[in-house]
Amino acid sequence: MLKNQAIRIVKRPVGIPSAENFRKVSLDIPALADGQILVKNEWLSVEPAMRGWLADANNYASVNVGEIMRSLCVGVVVASMADEYQVGERLLGWFGWQEYAVVGPTAIIQRIESAELPASLYLGVLGLNGVTAATALDKIAELKHGDVVVVSTAAGGVGSCAGQLAKLKGCRVVGLTSTPAKVKTCYERFGYDHVINYKTEDIDAALKKACPDGVNVYFDNTAGGISDAVMRNLAIGARVIICGTASIASWDPVPLGPRAERIILTRRARVQGFIVLDHQDTYSTYVAQLEALVRAGKLSYEEHITDGLDSAMNAIAELYRGENVGKRLVRLA
Amino acid sequence: MLKNQAIRIVKRPVGIPSAENFRKVSLDIPALADGQILVKNEWLSVEPAMRGWLADANNYASVNVGEIMRSLCVGVVVASMADEYQVGERLLGWFGWQEYAVVGPTAIIQRIESAELPASLYLGVLGLNGVTAATALDKIAELKHGDVVVVSTAAGGVGSCAGQLAKLKGCRVVGLTSTPAKVKTCYERFGYDHVINYKTEDIDAALKKACPDGVNVYFDNTAGGISDAVMRNLAIGARVIICGTASIASWDPVPLGPRAERIILTRRARVQGFIVLDHQDTYSTYVAQLEALVRAGKLSYEEHITDGLDSAMNAIAELYRGENVGKRLVRLA
Repeated sequence: MLKNQAIRIVKRPVGIPSAENFRKVSLDIPALADGQILVKNEWLSVEPAMRGWLADANNYASVNVGEIMRSLCVGVVVASMADEYQVGERLLGWFGWQEYAVVGPTAIIQRIESAELPASLYLGVLGLNGVTAATALDKIAELKHGDVVVVSTAAGGVGSCAGQLAKLKGCRVVGLTSTPAKVKTCYERFGYDHVINYKTEDIDAALKKACPDGVNVYFDNTAGGISDAVMRNLAIGARVIICGTASIASWDPVPLGPRAERIILTRRARVQGFIVLDHQDTYSTYVAQLEALVRAGKLSYEEHITDGLDSAMNAIAELYRGENVGKRLVRLA
Repeated sequence: MLKNQAIRIVKRPVGIPSAENFRKVSLDIPALADGQILVKNEWLSVEPAMRGWLADANNYASVNVGEIMRSLCVGVVVASMADEYQVGERLLGWFGWQEYAVVGPTAIIQRIESAELPASLYLGVLGLNGVTAATALDKIAELKHGDVVVVSTAAGGVGSCAGQLAKLKGCRVVGLTSTPAKVKTCYERFGYDHVINYKTEDIDAALKKACPDGVNVYFDNTAGGISDAVMRNLAIGARVIICGTASIASWDPVPLGPRAERIILTRRARVQGFIVLDHQDTYSTYVAQLEALVRAGKLSYEEHITDGLDSAMNAIAELYRGENVGKRLVRLA
């Protein structure tokens, strides 16, 4: 009988999740109930947001010990008891870190029908990453031609899209990243106007030089000291999108930082939290926009791929150590 | 010859301004140039914002050593070389902490023509305080019927207006204040649904009890520990208006506090700085709305009045010690 290999959560992480929080288990595949389908996963996603899902703290989408790790995946239907999905169709959905998933229609986000674009892109530039960047910029950044836009994790899945989309809107785009290789990628692949290596440069001085009139929009994926420096350099009327907090290893206890109230007041800044899952109604609209840009060669992406289910277990930690360039993916045979 | 008594800034404050930062000086009154008027002040305003104007730090409206202290005032025209202003007219304007001011038309905000409303109200509930509360709530709070609105400095000039205006819009209004007398005033005069004494109660516990479903709008005039507690109790989609930072004695160096990024992200909160001087185009519209509410008996106010120019010099410090109830004013004979 066919067995399913799956990654189960065995311990809540303190701080960044790593292999010790997971265990690979072998499971029977249950019979399909009416309306369900059996999906064989081809691609698993690894997201910075998984740290939040796994944390005990206030989170918008907690996952619990004993469950299979939640993940967006691309997979192919191998059996169907649902009229609307046929064997052989390729789907994007919440199929989890496992080889096979038995799911109902609510787990499915979309069919992947495009023949000319790689299916893995629907987990990155055409998936949560790209849609996050596009939605946040469109709905809350109020980008104006000529705005100076700063992006943290500039070479990452979300950051690289945000930088390119802002550039396409006529903004001047400054990226913050962590290695010489990523600086190079930011310039050559993602078209940043200026890139700062926050590990080797004085961030405040570099920002002052790169943005002498201040920062109009800050697309923040890190929080922490990097953000403190950007905040000190905000222009009057700046918009700050808080999309992730990758630089903070643990929120329990809540770390201290310089109070931001005075800057927010005197710069009349607007600081707003953004979670793409709130915007499911417009998801497909942004996917279509991003597909058009990728097809036209106007939106570049990088994928960082490892093979096999086992490689997922340490992948979140690698992401937080900044070892990836571009979208982190796990490929299954 | 008529002499002018005036309060001059002699030293920038470190922290909260007090009498040592000012000196009363006796000045000649210059002859009027074409287009100028001579105003005799009746009422001087004392604002929490004056701390910011006097600070060396980033400010939107710095005043400098050697200058007469900037202030909104109500005064009467006693001589005019400007066709549009006649002797005997009462005006609201930037006339400074002094007995007489020689000014041009740019210093004047409005004529005070209402006979039945006290002229001093144009420095408080019908002035910057009321207009600040009304503008911020109208333009950035997105108040919805049934929203839970928390106001810090609930009994103060801005706070008491914000609380009442939110209540008039059908919100449930919770105030934070500092003395039993102010708690009483908040309930009896300003109609708060619930009032927390942040000096004697556990703010987090009191907020959890008063706002079990979280805080939808936070009208913040204090920053600091009070705000940290309110932030921990924000509801999803909360709006935070940063209007003042009265609880922070000095921003140099910037004090530390718990990082807010994770709360802002997970609650999808929007935190925005507000300065009423950015909204001069709509000032008179809001004054008219507030006049109508005061006339109809729907908007209460408190004034805290002292007599004589000398009493202005310590008045900012008194404000920051929370010794006032309602709008702090100085009356000149």
